[in-house]
Amino acid sequence: MTLHQDRKIWGWGLSTYCVPPPLLDVARAFLSARLGRELPPPRPVPTLDALTMPPPVRAIPSELADLATTDRFARALHTYGKSFRDVVRALDGDFSCAPDWVAFPKSEADLVRILALADREHVAVIPFGGGSSVVGGITADAETRASYSAVLSLDLGHLNQLLEVDRASRCVRVQAGTYGPALEQQLRPHGYTLRHYPQSFEFSTVGGWIATRAGGHFATLYTHIDDLLQSLRMVTPQGIVETRRLPGNGAGPEPNRLLLGSEGALGVISEAWLRVQDLPRFRASCTVRFPSFAAGAAACQRLSQSGLYPANARLIERDEALFMGAGDGETHILVLGFESALESQKDKLHSALSLCTALGGQPGRPKVRDEDHADPAASDEAAEQWKQSFVRAPYLRDELCRLGLCCETFETCTTWANFPRLDAAVRAAAQAVLDAECGGGVLTCRFTHLYPDGPAPYYTVIGLPQPGQQLAVWDAVKAAVSQALIDCGATITHHHAVGKDHRRFYERQVGPLALQMVLGAKRAVDPLGIMNPGTLVPALCSPKEKT
Amino acid sequence: MTLHQDRKIWGWGLSTYCVPPPLLDVARAFLSARLGRELPPPRPVPTLDALTMPPPVRAIPSELADLATTDRFARALHTYGKSFRDVVRALDGDFSCAPDWVAFPKSEADLVRILALADREHVAVIPFGGGSSVVGGITADAETRASYSAVLSLDLGHLNQLLEVDRASRCVRVQAGTYGPALEQQLRPHGYTLRHYPQSFEFSTVGGWIATRAGGHFATLYTHIDDLLQSLRMVTPQGIVETRRLPGNGAGPEPNRLLLGSEGALGVISEAWLRVQDLPRFRASCTVRFPSFAAGAAACQRLSQSGLYPANARLIERDEALFMGAGDGETHILVLGFESALESQKDKLHSALSLCTALGGQPGRPKVRDEDHADPAASDEAAEQWKQSFVRAPYLRDELCRLGLCCETFETCTTWANFPRLDAAVRAAAQAVLDAECGGGVLTCRFTHLYPDGPAPYYTVIGLPQPGQQLAVWDAVKAAVSQALIDCGATITHHHAVGKDHRRFYERQVGPLALQMVLGAKRAVDPLGIMNPGTLVPALCSPKEKT
Repeated sequence: MTLHQDRKIWGWGLSTYCVPPPLLDVARAFLSARLGRELPPPRPVPTLDALTMPPPVRAIPSELADLATTDRFARALHTYGKSFRDVVRALDGDFSCAPDWVAFPKSEADLVRILALADREHVAVIPFGGGSSVVGGITADAETRASYSAVLSLDLGHLNQLLEVDRASRCVRVQAGTYGPALEQQLRPHGYTLRHYPQSFEFSTVGGWIATRAGGHFATLYTHIDDLLQSLRMVTPQGIVETRRLPGNGAGPEPNRLLLGSEGALGVISEAWLRVQDLPRFRASCTVRFPSFAAGAAACQRLSQSGLYPANARLIERDEALFMGAGDGETHILVLGFESALESQKDKLHSALSLCTALGGQPGRPKVRDEDHADPAASDEAAEQWKQSFVRAPYLRDELCRLGLCCETFETCTTWANFPRLDAAVRAAAQAVLDAECGGGVLTCRFTHLYPDGPAPYYTVIGLPQPGQQLAVWDAVKAAVSQALIDCGATITHHHAVGKDHRRFYERQVGPLALQMVLGAKRAVDPLGIMNPGTLVPALCSPKEKT
Repeated sequence: MTLHQDRKIWGWGLSTYCVPPPLLDVARAFLSARLGRELPPPRPVPTLDALTMPPPVRAIPSELADLATTDRFARALHTYGKSFRDVVRALDGDFSCAPDWVAFPKSEADLVRILALADREHVAVIPFGGGSSVVGGITADAETRASYSAVLSLDLGHLNQLLEVDRASRCVRVQAGTYGPALEQQLRPHGYTLRHYPQSFEFSTVGGWIATRAGGHFATLYTHIDDLLQSLRMVTPQGIVETRRLPGNGAGPEPNRLLLGSEGALGVISEAWLRVQDLPRFRASCTVRFPSFAAGAAACQRLSQSGLYPANARLIERDEALFMGAGDGETHILVLGFESALESQKDKLHSALSLCTALGGQPGRPKVRDEDHADPAASDEAAEQWKQSFVRAPYLRDELCRLGLCCETFETCTTWANFPRLDAAVRAAAQAVLDAECGGGVLTCRFTHLYPDGPAPYYTVIGLPQPGQQLAVWDAVKAAVSQALIDCGATITHHHAVGKDHRRFYERQVGPLALQMVLGAKRAVDPLGIMNPGTLVPALCSPKEKT
């Protein structure tokens, strides 16, 4: 019944994967130097036997006996997402918030059956795709455990098939539990790609992307899952909501958009039609160095408003580039790239480089690939190197956590006009906590996405707290920076979602009336509040109301 | 207090504008020939004095005395939108559903004041932008008149200012009552354009575009107001909802998308931040002829998936091209164009024409304008001619209505795979009614927008009913074609909105649960149901509940 035997119970990815020791050494050396202190040795990783985990609050109802388990490994694996706090608590062996049951439905009918029972017996249901939430989106809190008759983690992993290909409309119907690599593997024989590469790609699913409004890796145009989604089916406690397969639609508030970003709080997505693309055959890329981050930002602003729509345009602060093995530590780097399935991108790259040069950028050697064959591995080396470190980053974060460091990332979005103010506020807020609690720390920034009206800045904050203070410092940094984001008019999340960790800031961001509108929509499909209680919006059911 | 002294009370636009008689003669001759009958002479237009209009149900409350009027012309002008039924009823002199009061707020504070009174005194409030609804979106029905203490039309026309320009982020803050031409006029000194040209452009407003999810004139990429909206403020009976100025945002269901398409049923939009663009300086266009509509459609499909993103790509069926004075009646026409503020579009046009030629298209002479100066009038002649007829079409429709014809347009969207089936079903449904009721008729199609996954077909249906049967036939055609759209999985509206006319089909399109979600959101901001009752969603308050 379990799917994930090679997965780590305490953090990201596979238990069999090791961060290459030389890379870890580089990271340690860099951080030791910047923090001015030796890093402690890594703490041991927890074993399944040694975990603290309460027994299931009650036995699995007979109707679900064929679908659910109370297996210790399954419960451990479904206890946490991949936030920093999740990893620290897991390393502590604290699995007190484990779900009572883990269900592995094999069909949409199973989903219907599970939700019907859960609604009847007041069981909290937490949809689980790849388990990659970094915002507490799939973890039951104490309030949930106190308010419901049981907590069920609903793992969609068996719903992993490409069901239908519509070549004329270039769309595919796919089950919600399909992981990124399995999706691409099933698309490849058809000559297609979804071209959606969130950092969580390897261990996240189609349904999870939709539920959390995942951001793809590409910098402009159609990269967010929001735009790649044509229609979906969602099983709710009140029945199935199905949106139509419409390329465009002007009828009322767009139904897909009511469901995108609902984070399991309305229902569980069973399948979706996605807009796929032809495999790119033409590529052109170049790395551009800038003497200051501000100069790089000015080039990004101009690029974003140029109509050139680069596939990649990641501006990386020099310290971050150095840390990821992609820079000289002196200059800030813009990784720029274009792709097309139709025609050479040489001229577009040339136009983009002209814009960059005019604003103080120094381009490296452009790489143009006009090969007329679809080789998905034919990306350029710099991009490939960067992609490797991009995919490796969550593993590295786990190792830094074991070293007693406090690491957090903040991804947000604001206007070009507001970016300097926001940037100063984020740096001041983080630095104040790092100085007070860690005697200093490292803060770096990159731009992950560019819009004509503003960038999506992504901050990485690292400090070395006193022993035993890892979570306290993380809480303090998280609160201070989140507050700065909200106070400066930015968003609490550009693509990491709300979950439980961002909820109080989400409420400030949207305001009380918009929150009530979302709750009004929730009541229509989940009147008893069994769906992912406390994630995104406050639980409809408080402990006092418990029957 | 009134703004619209030169506006027609019975139809589209200005009372001073006349469709050029030669054009009207061409249209009459074309239709006479196709319908095989002489058209009757035009019926007279109604005069203000001769209208049937009940007196206001009660006097304006003293608190609104400075903002509202019961002036007969004002009430007449705010009675109807511009649907075919509206025009016929207006020509009949039937203004029985006139609002009791028309208010002209001068500030957002006035909106707050009006909604507070309306909520307290159970007055139905119908937000009015340009009054261009073609779906009954701004017309009080009998149920509304029976259920509320009065009906107030809320005209935003005085809120018509550009308030702020953010050059770095290329955004502007503008009041919701600003009409299209006034907006572009205020943007021009800054070198900007919104580049949003719905057919209603001259007589519709920013707030109306947002409330109805207006579709722009351009065929691909950022043309819908949905994508041009950065943030907005909406006054609701429960207070003001304000969304943040975020270029991207992953926090919960996107708040703007909850409000876009709400058609006045949640609240009234007071202002918005919009994403503007630099004026295009480079253009390339060409007309391509196709021997069959299917061949043109195949070229559109390929274009839509090419990544070329033409600004214009309107495929027009030969009869429609002929009727609009833009074709030879033998071949179907694709109006193709590219624009850019940055660089020559010559190569893009060349690539697009190659695609078309490979699929049987015969390009005319390409027109490339690489002039490096921003002359908004420098569009090519064919496009200009088409634009003229595009803007003139609603005036012409009014005149056809006076001739006793039944005219309706159906704009929808479906996948490429489903288009042939939908097209056959729409033609069969319309033809059956036209044959039975009018002894035949004319049906033509064009594509207004292209998406990678499908086109937005736009059908025009014209017949000549027996005298006195104009509305009955219109009702029958409307019902039959709408049913076909819904049965075939398409949308009831691509950009005309839902209003009252499409409501029962909208309910079938989204299904009962999604409808309840929208109603749940409505109850959060408008618990007493005073906002535009019966538009988009069923009124919360039925006559029986009347206090």
